[in-house]
Amino acid sequence: MSDTLFTVDATCGQSGGRTGTLKLPRGEVRTPVFMPVGTLGTVKAITVGELGGLGYGLILGNAYHLSVRPGDGLIGELGGLHRFMGWEGSILTDSGGYQVFSLEARRRIDEDGVTFNDPATGDAVRLTPERVIEIEDRLGSDILMPLDQPVPWGADRQATRDAVDRSDRWAERACAERDRRHLDAPHRLLFGIQQGGFEEDLRRLSSERLSALSFDGYAIGGLSFGEPPAVTAGILPGCAGALPEDRPRYLMGVGTPADIVTAVACGVDMFDCVLPTRLARHGTAYVGHSTVQLRNAKWREEDSPLDPGCGCEACTRYPAAYLAHLVRSKEILGCRLLAIHNLYHYGALMARIRESIAGGTFAAMAAEYARREPDEE
Amino acid sequence: MSDTLFTVDATCGQSGGRTGTLKLPRGEVRTPVFMPVGTLGTVKAITVGELGGLGYGLILGNAYHLSVRPGDGLIGELGGLHRFMGWEGSILTDSGGYQVFSLEARRRIDEDGVTFNDPATGDAVRLTPERVIEIEDRLGSDILMPLDQPVPWGADRQATRDAVDRSDRWAERACAERDRRHLDAPHRLLFGIQQGGFEEDLRRLSSERLSALSFDGYAIGGLSFGEPPAVTAGILPGCAGALPEDRPRYLMGVGTPADIVTAVACGVDMFDCVLPTRLARHGTAYVGHSTVQLRNAKWREEDSPLDPGCGCEACTRYPAAYLAHLVRSKEILGCRLLAIHNLYHYGALMARIRESIAGGTFAAMAAEYARREPDEE
Repeated sequence: MSDTLFTVDATCGQSGGRTGTLKLPRGEVRTPVFMPVGTLGTVKAITVGELGGLGYGLILGNAYHLSVRPGDGLIGELGGLHRFMGWEGSILTDSGGYQVFSLEARRRIDEDGVTFNDPATGDAVRLTPERVIEIEDRLGSDILMPLDQPVPWGADRQATRDAVDRSDRWAERACAERDRRHLDAPHRLLFGIQQGGFEEDLRRLSSERLSALSFDGYAIGGLSFGEPPAVTAGILPGCAGALPEDRPRYLMGVGTPADIVTAVACGVDMFDCVLPTRLARHGTAYVGHSTVQLRNAKWREEDSPLDPGCGCEACTRYPAAYLAHLVRSKEILGCRLLAIHNLYHYGALMARIRESIAGGTFAAMAAEYARREPDEE
Repeated sequence: MSDTLFTVDATCGQSGGRTGTLKLPRGEVRTPVFMPVGTLGTVKAITVGELGGLGYGLILGNAYHLSVRPGDGLIGELGGLHRFMGWEGSILTDSGGYQVFSLEARRRIDEDGVTFNDPATGDAVRLTPERVIEIEDRLGSDILMPLDQPVPWGADRQATRDAVDRSDRWAERACAERDRRHLDAPHRLLFGIQQGGFEEDLRRLSSERLSALSFDGYAIGGLSFGEPPAVTAGILPGCAGALPEDRPRYLMGVGTPADIVTAVACGVDMFDCVLPTRLARHGTAYVGHSTVQLRNAKWREEDSPLDPGCGCEACTRYPAAYLAHLVRSKEILGCRLLAIHNLYHYGALMARIRESIAGGTFAAMAAEYARREPDEE
């Protein structure tokens, strides 16, 4: 990519935190950015109009799942994922590397790729580095992620080393397929994914190899894979620090607001997580620096808004007791309104992070999140 | 009510069809009108903002269900159902009479009222004519329905006669309770419910007794209670014809678009039905004069809108293949978009009915619906 596709506009000074601009074909995105997850072509329970209204301009799709349902061939014929789902913003597609981990019992891995037994359809699904780029090309992704092989917490050093080596060979094949398809010409970005488990030297090795290839950004893969939070916190600064400074850094699958603030301090620019929408479907909402559970008795008769300081539709139009009633009654509208609230909360968090970095107050914000209250469950 | 609260603005001439205006405290409603069903304080999957955007100004709530969850006392303390659910339009509340039928195995009926064993909570719930008016008073309903005792298709004449007699005694008690609470002063309307099963003389008897009381409108209860469609069609003209001409007539729980057109021709002004939102949750959409099932193979690759002639959000923003994908993937957004589509379809149907009555073309419209295509399933 041209070096002007990502610019760092301000840095924290007291941490690795930075705020910048990612110039994508469908619009600029200010970083640090949170990307709502739309695995199957929908951010669950939310319309694209609502996503835009919440200020989001970049969301996630999943190449693996969309290739199975409804099929990348079909989406391609219908004009691509943006048109299919009516989304005018940008889309980053996950490759299926996460499913190598999450569907471990249903996949076989070899040097050329991975064969899955899909849980939704029972079909055999073959992914190779080249096939993943083909899927993402057909979907029309703005940011493509290559196939990789993460290892779970607890993998031994040799298994971790083998997976890094293979992931890096697959990264090279992904770049070659990108070049063969000339996907960089219309400014479609391809990110490298750093692996290396919980071994700092392997993380550095992976970064060095990926930096020698032509990637537009770099992701940190394989964290939040079952390890204790202290382990993640311990290794993250080294992971982020090993990646080139002039490219966006994306911490895959993370996380809570406190996780995000911590990672921003390590120099991470991009995040995605199912938490805001998944917790919404379970009746959990972000309030202040923690979460509350709407099924708890204290909300049943609450006349005030869920979060009096929040400007979202759920908080400005309804008493919290109504949201609690919808959750207890398992009404779809409850999922909807809490998803709106949680995504609004994440959007406001990211805006505050960007403003505090630009304004020189990010270190204070990070300290505030380190002192957060316990979650209500 | 003052006689000016309902005016007939035009009649069909070739049928009993009429279009008019119902003046409610929260705004005028043009009839014939369809009322979306919001049993538990939410029209399923839809926000109040969307309902307003679809042109609806009058929806249903259910006094029985809301008295159990979250409780009429709580809703009253929180300022009433309108504030609780954020709805600025009008609300008609069903009494629980339908539950006398639908929860038959879970209720005991006596002269004073009905005791239910609630299926959601297992609690014993006691409804009397007075208690129902109390619930509806606390909810702040704009149109109150009294407790009644419908009989199922197949009930013998004596059982039907006993139920009519009891319903009419309960109607008198409901009026007395309405007067005791002075609910007519703020123009809150109370409707009488005609019963009589499938016996025309009992329907007439019920109408005569109810007309002698002070009701603001009249409902036809106990139809679509398991009888064959030809039976409903045979008895409906007599049911509607027995009711006063100068008051709105409401056919409870009906129905399909064709049912509605037929009933309008008999002089019915108001309708409610769960079909548009319930079918949406099962992947069924109204197109033209029938329904289509989005799971059918023909929709999987369909690039065109679901209904090219429809102006709703689902039809103007997405290819039908996207809706089919959401339905097959059981995504909440699929329920949402089909509910929007089906409610838009019903709204457009009612607008066309009103316009065709005013314009003298309703008879042709009714003939068109009599020739409808079969549903796709």
